[in-house]
Amino acid sequence: MRLSDFGEKEIIKELSMSLDIGDDAAYIRSGDKYLVLSTDMVYEDTHILPQMSWEQKGRLIVTVNLSDIAAMGAKPLAFLLGYGSPDMDYRDFKAFIKGVHDQCDRFKTKYAGGDTNWMPKLTLSGTVMGETKNPVLRSSAREGDLIAVTGNLGSASIGTKLLLERDISPSELGNPVFLKALQPEPRIGEGLFLNHHVNAMTDISDGLATSLRDVAVNSGAGARIDIEKLPVAEEADILATEYDLDSVEHALYGEGDYELLFTFKREEIKVISSELPVYVIGEITCGEDIVAVDSGEEFKIKKQGYEHFRSCPQKT
Amino acid sequence: MRLSDFGEKEIIKELSMSLDIGDDAAYIRSGDKYLVLSTDMVYEDTHILPQMSWEQKGRLIVTVNLSDIAAMGAKPLAFLLGYGSPDMDYRDFKAFIKGVHDQCDRFKTKYAGGDTNWMPKLTLSGTVMGETKNPVLRSSAREGDLIAVTGNLGSASIGTKLLLERDISPSELGNPVFLKALQPEPRIGEGLFLNHHVNAMTDISDGLATSLRDVAVNSGAGARIDIEKLPVAEEADILATEYDLDSVEHALYGEGDYELLFTFKREEIKVISSELPVYVIGEITCGEDIVAVDSGEEFKIKKQGYEHFRSCPQKT
Repeated sequence: MRLSDFGEKEIIKELSMSLDIGDDAAYIRSGDKYLVLSTDMVYEDTHILPQMSWEQKGRLIVTVNLSDIAAMGAKPLAFLLGYGSPDMDYRDFKAFIKGVHDQCDRFKTKYAGGDTNWMPKLTLSGTVMGETKNPVLRSSAREGDLIAVTGNLGSASIGTKLLLERDISPSELGNPVFLKALQPEPRIGEGLFLNHHVNAMTDISDGLATSLRDVAVNSGAGARIDIEKLPVAEEADILATEYDLDSVEHALYGEGDYELLFTFKREEIKVISSELPVYVIGEITCGEDIVAVDSGEEFKIKKQGYEHFRSCPQKT
Repeated sequence: MRLSDFGEKEIIKELSMSLDIGDDAAYIRSGDKYLVLSTDMVYEDTHILPQMSWEQKGRLIVTVNLSDIAAMGAKPLAFLLGYGSPDMDYRDFKAFIKGVHDQCDRFKTKYAGGDTNWMPKLTLSGTVMGETKNPVLRSSAREGDLIAVTGNLGSASIGTKLLLERDISPSELGNPVFLKALQPEPRIGEGLFLNHHVNAMTDISDGLATSLRDVAVNSGAGARIDIEKLPVAEEADILATEYDLDSVEHALYGEGDYELLFTFKREEIKVISSELPVYVIGEITCGEDIVAVDSGEEFKIKKQGYEHFRSCPQKT
């Protein structure tokens, strides 16, 4: 039996046998608060777009790690970097380091050191430590909760697909759709604010469908979302039309949108939406079905999303 | 200008611009103690011997990280794993995870979760968090201090060389020299005890010469060691003779001995040696020369040791 027979979710379960929780990050009690820890790797062939600048690569490894801390509603404290690459130009390396430092600085995260190794392809490993008095879990959604996200869906996925498969000119890279693929941002401030107002939270970098399933299954509940309410950026719709892509498919299953998915009691909507743009997309239901409603018709959401050992690229 | 023009030490300096210290691990104040953080990567082509079992690979990624915590005199709390590999047999993966868990358990370190990714070669990234009230630095050695190590030198390096270059039969792998290469152990207990009795400490996994230089230079001092006092295991001497290797060269410059190098006031020798096997190899001197004495003759210790971007393997 091979790892690919399982998929990443099962493997992480295996990896987490003795973990407090199978959540966005691990948490460990320390005095009157919790330390929150998470690690994420980025690999040239599977995560890095050819159009990314070295500075953007530096920001990316910080962002993917900070996003897990945001999902716990925690404040990031320190970031560590494992850096592997072939020999390279020193200016590129400086630009990369600048990206790491800038992104740490923006989110008040101490850059706390690293390890370097020779490797044949760029391989980045980040670890971030944060803290919170109240780690927000995926598993604590309650029946009747509203489900919302912090921002547009599908942009990163549409952007990534086009950057990989079409001839996108450098002048177009400022389009927010491409920018979201090249330079995603973690929702740290949003996570900190939402901590006090939500029941459950997770990041959706592996895709909305996957994250929705994680929240529902781990909370012992079902979920119903309304396709017409999925927030899709205007620019994403324009590109989807131009290149004949299904923006709903991308919003549901696309990866790389470092937004937060959260559930909360209806009565919190006022206070939450007074502070943040909030896109309510559905509600937590009893039972275990995870469904979407589109023009009055209900359909089950496919189990899909990015799982590394199921979608092994074979290109090397 | 390329990275290889610098070498790993300079790059880590660059990586650590805003770090508290360029020490074995970063430390961050938290209440009345310090959290200690370190990250280390292990890559198939440069770190993993073909003879290592999957369980040993699992232990290795924990050990290399715990060793940095030991060097700070800190107590490990939690370990995180970043795991990258091609598709593989599930039993091998289970054995690997067992190695990770067992090694965490042995050193009372919580396994706190991980990230998995498809990668064409086994690529492991570990992060460990520890704590201490008193982080022991490399930079606090004082003139007149004795210099000692916690165990034999050169075994891992001799073992590694022979395992890579000679036809070593499986029945020989129990030899402590090969075992030290295949299954190194971190000096956690030793580091915790030494915390209260030493001025400076570091691990010597990058080689004695490199670590000695780190301690002396960062402490603004010199060092003199006595070649005849370098502890070399009897089995290492026997293999060195058999295969025509220079065991002193391996003791001085060989990598992979996860021992601690530490410096301390002379009067502490009694209490330290009552608790641990201690091998005193020299003393901290004034000035800046780092020298070795061999049969009455003094020579400068070459600046050598493992730096990843200077010794790039070109074999892929």
